[in-house]
Amino acid sequence: MLRNFKLEKYLEDGKKTYSKREDIENLADSLTEKKFRNIVILGIGGTWAEWYAIVEYCRHLSDFPIYLENAAEFLVKKNMNYLSKDSLVITSSASGNTKEILEAVKLCMAEGIRVYGFTRDETTPLAKLLTKAIYNPCGDCEHSYLMYFMLALRLYHNMGYFDSYKRWADQMQHLYTNLIRIREEFEPRAAEIAKKYAKEPYTMFVGSGLLWGETYLFTMCILEEMQWVRTKAVTSADFFHGPLELVEKDVPVFLVMGEDEYRPLDERVERFARKFTDKLEVFDTKEFHLTDIDDEFRLIVTPMIITAILTERLAVHYELNTGHSLEFRRYYRQFEY
Amino acid sequence: MLRNFKLEKYLEDGKKTYSKREDIENLADSLTEKKFRNIVILGIGGTWAEWYAIVEYCRHLSDFPIYLENAAEFLVKKNMNYLSKDSLVITSSASGNTKEILEAVKLCMAEGIRVYGFTRDETTPLAKLLTKAIYNPCGDCEHSYLMYFMLALRLYHNMGYFDSYKRWADQMQHLYTNLIRIREEFEPRAAEIAKKYAKEPYTMFVGSGLLWGETYLFTMCILEEMQWVRTKAVTSADFFHGPLELVEKDVPVFLVMGEDEYRPLDERVERFARKFTDKLEVFDTKEFHLTDIDDEFRLIVTPMIITAILTERLAVHYELNTGHSLEFRRYYRQFEY
Repeated sequence: MLRNFKLEKYLEDGKKTYSKREDIENLADSLTEKKFRNIVILGIGGTWAEWYAIVEYCRHLSDFPIYLENAAEFLVKKNMNYLSKDSLVITSSASGNTKEILEAVKLCMAEGIRVYGFTRDETTPLAKLLTKAIYNPCGDCEHSYLMYFMLALRLYHNMGYFDSYKRWADQMQHLYTNLIRIREEFEPRAAEIAKKYAKEPYTMFVGSGLLWGETYLFTMCILEEMQWVRTKAVTSADFFHGPLELVEKDVPVFLVMGEDEYRPLDERVERFARKFTDKLEVFDTKEFHLTDIDDEFRLIVTPMIITAILTERLAVHYELNTGHSLEFRRYYRQFEY
Repeated sequence: MLRNFKLEKYLEDGKKTYSKREDIENLADSLTEKKFRNIVILGIGGTWAEWYAIVEYCRHLSDFPIYLENAAEFLVKKNMNYLSKDSLVITSSASGNTKEILEAVKLCMAEGIRVYGFTRDETTPLAKLLTKAIYNPCGDCEHSYLMYFMLALRLYHNMGYFDSYKRWADQMQHLYTNLIRIREEFEPRAAEIAKKYAKEPYTMFVGSGLLWGETYLFTMCILEEMQWVRTKAVTSADFFHGPLELVEKDVPVFLVMGEDEYRPLDERVERFARKFTDKLEVFDTKEFHLTDIDDEFRLIVTPMIITAILTERLAVHYELNTGHSLEFRRYYRQFEY
């Protein structure tokens, strides 16, 4: 039994999201025909963090130039010679009214650069700006991951860098039932961890590679923004150049462990932290089996596993223990700043 | 009067560092003759952070490909098709025995890729590996900045991207007297800030652009590693996507403000933080005048100003107030991990 989780609605949302496959593939195919010299992704906050995994994965498929831009920095930064009318610019905002994203899209349009992307539906301000929008009606993290990966991997498939696209996309029909089972497996641990740590004055988070985006998202957009819980997020490589000195018996260290080539860096953190804190928690995607999804596609699913167990499940249990609604903000989007 | 500061030795060190100008220029000139297709910098911890400013600056001069690699990630990551025998690989380690740097250099050598760089003297393990080393006898941050900028800017000058190299390098003779005066101007504030905040359980640091490296370095390598003080470092753009919710009257927010195009993002943070915390401290390079250095070179000097006032001066005063020696470590380099 999952706390505050509507199982039927979730499966329905999964179907809705998956049903966009044809729209997304058609868009990717028409973009491929138009040709482009590079891909520029505009994100900010949570969307930046989600795209991080996609961009990182794509860079392993090919050295075709793909750039991930923070939309606020994009608005001011000067060294972007790669941005041109030959760029394929993609963005996303579920709400469709994220200020920095809208301004960044307008800036592209003023230069005659077309922008494509994802937003909730046709009524959002972003939908009205985009050259062509894909509607992402559910918008929670795994839905976004699935849609972004579909678009990116279809583009890479069309360029000759991801031959197994069809098999992968077919198997993604099984994503949601896997993520429900994984949630159920993790639920008792989520309850236990949140009970133990939700009121800690400080929690260190360590992650790397493909999962760095999720590590950053969970600390910044969930614990800080939605729970007012203080965190420090650091990569597994950097952990050994400063933050390690803060570790002691009662300092919580949460380690997000993935399956890419950065794993040895995560393992080094684990060995160190086991010795010096009693409050180490490891979130290792390897502990979760995937049914009807080939092992070669596991990497793509790892950020979705972490989003299911941390950004969704653990957040719900933190809320229970902090008593601070995940919906409540005092500043964010409450007024102009 | 500057606390724990040997004025004469400092000026002498400055002269020693500046005296390497010819060696550095000769190296840059001979590297230019050999030709290279891209530049790859290997750093970790503090050296990564210092190189960050140089790489960021160079990217404004030209879109010639230059990559900044974290040496620990470099050892495992797979998507580095740009690395080849035609790459110019540069690294640095003052001690010359940083584990990840040594392994990364060996990995390059095994591929037949030559590596150049900076280390204390000819006796260090790194000196023995490098194809050609420049000795950086003093090694503190501004010395490193000056030497790294000299090498990089001479290379960019030779490629036709930095015509004013000679005038800049000539004016850098006046760097150290400027940085002494700036230290003296800042000293009372360093004493006051450290007294007020050194025992805070949590301090948020915000920075951007060219100065992001220093923001990261001061929090991670100084406060966390050398003072066991808990910090959160976040960019000015990201501040508004999560961390802002943590700000309240008694939460210290330290804002590092520079003079590049990211400044409007810093100013936005300042406006917000002024309203919601009584503990905002702004470190703005614009407040410091430079004598005998042209305004067009100010940007290059901004990380050196921040390193002088924070990484050096503020650190000394934190030490006084925490009672925790800047030399003391419990884990870092104390044993194998």
